[in-house]
Amino acid sequence: MSQATQDVNPNVSVDCAVFGFDNEKLNVLLIEQKMSDKEKVQFALPGDLILDDEGLDGAASRVLKDLTGLSGIFLRQFKAFGDPNRVSDIKDLEFLNSYRSNPQARVITVAYLALVKMDDFKPEASSFAENVFWQDVHTVPSLAFDHNKILNQALDRLRDDFVNHRTGFELLPELFTLGHIQKLYEIILDKELDKRNFRKKILKEKLVKATNQKQTGVLHKPAVLYTLNHEVL
Amino acid sequence: MSQATQDVNPNVSVDCAVFGFDNEKLNVLLIEQKMSDKEKVQFALPGDLILDDEGLDGAASRVLKDLTGLSGIFLRQFKAFGDPNRVSDIKDLEFLNSYRSNPQARVITVAYLALVKMDDFKPEASSFAENVFWQDVHTVPSLAFDHNKILNQALDRLRDDFVNHRTGFELLPELFTLGHIQKLYEIILDKELDKRNFRKKILKEKLVKATNQKQTGVLHKPAVLYTLNHEVL
Repeated sequence: MSQATQDVNPNVSVDCAVFGFDNEKLNVLLIEQKMSDKEKVQFALPGDLILDDEGLDGAASRVLKDLTGLSGIFLRQFKAFGDPNRVSDIKDLEFLNSYRSNPQARVITVAYLALVKMDDFKPEASSFAENVFWQDVHTVPSLAFDHNKILNQALDRLRDDFVNHRTGFELLPELFTLGHIQKLYEIILDKELDKRNFRKKILKEKLVKATNQKQTGVLHKPAVLYTLNHEVL
Repeated sequence: MSQATQDVNPNVSVDCAVFGFDNEKLNVLLIEQKMSDKEKVQFALPGDLILDDEGLDGAASRVLKDLTGLSGIFLRQFKAFGDPNRVSDIKDLEFLNSYRSNPQARVITVAYLALVKMDDFKPEASSFAENVFWQDVHTVPSLAFDHNKILNQALDRLRDDFVNHRTGFELLPELFTLGHIQKLYEIILDKELDKRNFRKKILKEKLVKATNQKQTGVLHKPAVLYTLNHEVL
């Protein structure tokens, strides 16, 4: 359904940076926008104008579902973006002209982020999304509007929250090795960590506690399995 | 000047939670709104609609200056508030009816916060602010719109940033005692701290370093003066 028939607010949108973790790398959920000129391709974060009777959090969930089919994702608001020149690319202007009743309106966008296990969600494109796909955050193409900027700031915030608020530890399985948790740190923070120093630090902070179980079915010496220490987290 | 004559965006405003530190308590800058019915009084955070050609950060600085005369304050955006029922109080409706050309428009507000030394700034009311004053955060009256909610979340964020990002340490003088810095923690976090544990923790984190100077002009045994350790901060 075209937005022109809905009671949308012309000046406020939401955009969603949904990060997917697959034990190997960090990915972000992107859409390919339907363009009236089929020769042109434009990628973007899932986002759209809010309706006049919905709150911001509700708008973020609805828009994500409308475009990608995904629901049940805990989206956290992280920043509003309001540069008066957010829209300048010719492809963005064309896209707005085909999908918005007031394409000239200045739009302030409220950006959300989420971090999920990639395997738990199977996105399906709908509405003005031609395609939807997971993209490695290291190889993100040029995106619509200011979405590259939003994505970069979302990544910064994700890392900050991981370090300061331990947001992201829920990605670990119930039982894990110290190697697993080091890998989680390395993927989210995007840097290699020294094994000895990392183990010393993580054990000192008491974020995890050893169980009396060990890995099974491995060829090397089985490692001790740990679990999250929810009292400290 | 009434907003009706300016090129304002009807759907987006900014609000500023400016906290002032006076070595004894934490205060917040409030305005008293000019009401058409002089019998009615309404207090609020300084805030107003954005202009269509200005960015959000610029709008926050301009609005703060327009209403309180203050400039040179580093305002940080912290959250957008967009409950569709943000305006419900009869006094708020009356205020909007006298000051806005489109008083029924739904307004999403982008909230900013700042922390300053109170003595460095002398606010003066102008525009639709009848008065402007510093109020102890413990005795804030009922505020316009959702401003009490915004203020409470600003305080939470201020405390979180103080703990996790050390934002606020610039309130300390160049040289200070461990007693001074404990007082800063107690005022910002709004709780009493155990002297021995606090000192142990602060020295272990190496946030401050001892100088070879001591207090002068005190009746008790002069305490060692410390300075911030900018390498760790």
